[in-house]
Amino acid sequence: MTSAKYDVLGIGNAIFDVFARTDDGFLKTHGMDKGGMALIDEARALKIYDAMGPATEMSGGSAANTIVGVASLGARAAYVGKIKDDQIGKLYAHDIRAAGVAFETAAATDGPATGCSYILVTPDGERTMNTYLGAAQELSPADIDEDAIAASAIVYLEGYLWDPANAKAAFVKASDIAHRANRRVALTLSDAFCVGRYRTEFLDLMRNGTIDLLFANESELASLYETKDFDAALGHLRNDVTLGIVTRSEKGCVVADAKAVTAVPAMPIDKLVDTTGAGDLFAAGFLVGLARNLSHEECGKLGALAAAEVIQHIGARPQVSLKALADKHGLRV
Amino acid sequence: MTSAKYDVLGIGNAIFDVFARTDDGFLKTHGMDKGGMALIDEARALKIYDAMGPATEMSGGSAANTIVGVASLGARAAYVGKIKDDQIGKLYAHDIRAAGVAFETAAATDGPATGCSYILVTPDGERTMNTYLGAAQELSPADIDEDAIAASAIVYLEGYLWDPANAKAAFVKASDIAHRANRRVALTLSDAFCVGRYRTEFLDLMRNGTIDLLFANESELASLYETKDFDAALGHLRNDVTLGIVTRSEKGCVVADAKAVTAVPAMPIDKLVDTTGAGDLFAAGFLVGLARNLSHEECGKLGALAAAEVIQHIGARPQVSLKALADKHGLRV
Repeated sequence: MTSAKYDVLGIGNAIFDVFARTDDGFLKTHGMDKGGMALIDEARALKIYDAMGPATEMSGGSAANTIVGVASLGARAAYVGKIKDDQIGKLYAHDIRAAGVAFETAAATDGPATGCSYILVTPDGERTMNTYLGAAQELSPADIDEDAIAASAIVYLEGYLWDPANAKAAFVKASDIAHRANRRVALTLSDAFCVGRYRTEFLDLMRNGTIDLLFANESELASLYETKDFDAALGHLRNDVTLGIVTRSEKGCVVADAKAVTAVPAMPIDKLVDTTGAGDLFAAGFLVGLARNLSHEECGKLGALAAAEVIQHIGARPQVSLKALADKHGLRV
Repeated sequence: MTSAKYDVLGIGNAIFDVFARTDDGFLKTHGMDKGGMALIDEARALKIYDAMGPATEMSGGSAANTIVGVASLGARAAYVGKIKDDQIGKLYAHDIRAAGVAFETAAATDGPATGCSYILVTPDGERTMNTYLGAAQELSPADIDEDAIAASAIVYLEGYLWDPANAKAAFVKASDIAHRANRRVALTLSDAFCVGRYRTEFLDLMRNGTIDLLFANESELASLYETKDFDAALGHLRNDVTLGIVTRSEKGCVVADAKAVTAVPAMPIDKLVDTTGAGDLFAAGFLVGLARNLSHEECGKLGALAAAEVIQHIGARPQVSLKALADKHGLRV
């Protein structure tokens, strides 16, 4: 195994986020599942956007948010995701590169526009996402650069990739390349509804060794193993992957491998503003800790730190240097 | 004079704001005048954007921000400004309409893209704007709808409109229509550099009755009368317009007509985050007070309230209902 060029390379749906504050009544009126991510077509996107209040825009995408967090913690980061060569795609490419992330995926020159997620944030800080995949669904195995994957210590994949048909093949290709280069492959389950759509396939990927590390939150874990018994689900998870990391919101996280289960508390916050990106940024901190060979406890603390920053403002990407924040809290990174 | 359909109709450069945090060194490296608004061409826009960090986007434009504030205070508001029919133009049109503002200006179908301002926010909360006018410079007299202007109690114009050549004629046309309908016309000087470019023309507009009300901050007023003697400048202002409103940052504002000078304190804030939109939102509150025939002191307090809200977050448009905020502070509106 040669030394890695990137600490973490992420692959995901490149999505531009359009945020507006709203109330629970709006979610109900428009038939949205609060806290979830619904895939929508262009007609529904237009309808929802028309009904939404004034918005704020920021680049997003689950794995992309994680990778920006990895870079913000001072680690070497790369991202693979599909945008279109349109105005919004240009904003997207700027933001991820300006964050210090290597981003070389060719933009689509025709086909659907750069993907957008219409994100409604309710007063309790919960976010409800309505995602038009657009160009993101054009990601294909041709976009997977063998050299970049083989040169990355950890390849990080988002479960949402299982939605667009071509991306599945890109996902599996990336995992194969990574394993041939003796690298580790991590998956985040993304969303309980996403797990509902692909439960069997995700379990196969875990059990056949396509995935080494799994990130999930409690509801995703419950959906994966179709049980509300947390300890039972965690037991299954320890059998199915080398390392399982389960986030439990304000209760912190649980890190489980064959040998041990480590619980790490969440970091206290002043005020919850917007949960968008909480899981993404937790994964960022954890992955950087892993890439630095830190203990599971230290990895969890870095994850908690990054998640705490991102949920205290609108938007799924850090607004301060997470490296500086880690230093301030005396966390090794 | 028939009863008005709109309390305030604003005309300005429709500009999409691209915000990034930076430090003073960046401004120096790129030769920017801190706190100012520089007009830039496309080549410089690309260069600045390339060098900027990850951004957050929001609709902006000085008069547009004011008009959104007017609507947020529960008053009837309309806006005239030129966008292009492109992705960013669509975001822009959505945001202003979603704020409850009537916006009917036809989007350009060819020519330059929707205008953008690249706004750098330093840790002290000061903002430095680099504006590519783009489609905004295509605003022309044909975009001035006589019926809408004549049906607006106050027409509010931004000094920045004096930059694009065709907009000047639109500006004068709107003022003429308003005065024929016995309406009032207000101008904001926009920026001390803008005043430096058009001092003589602005003074002519004030002295020949094209403008009835003038909004300025201290540095704009000093530039207009080429004096640092505030009282002397205020004396000139009282001669030149029916009503002059001068904002003085944390010192509040001074409202002056032929009869009296009224000082109104600023509203205390918790933390200055970003001054972008401070003057715009002050004008919003003041104009709504005027439209409601409130006292100059009450107008100033509404201005101070709206300005205080907008400088405590990134972005030049209110993030809460200003009407609800006014109610909370016991201000009549």
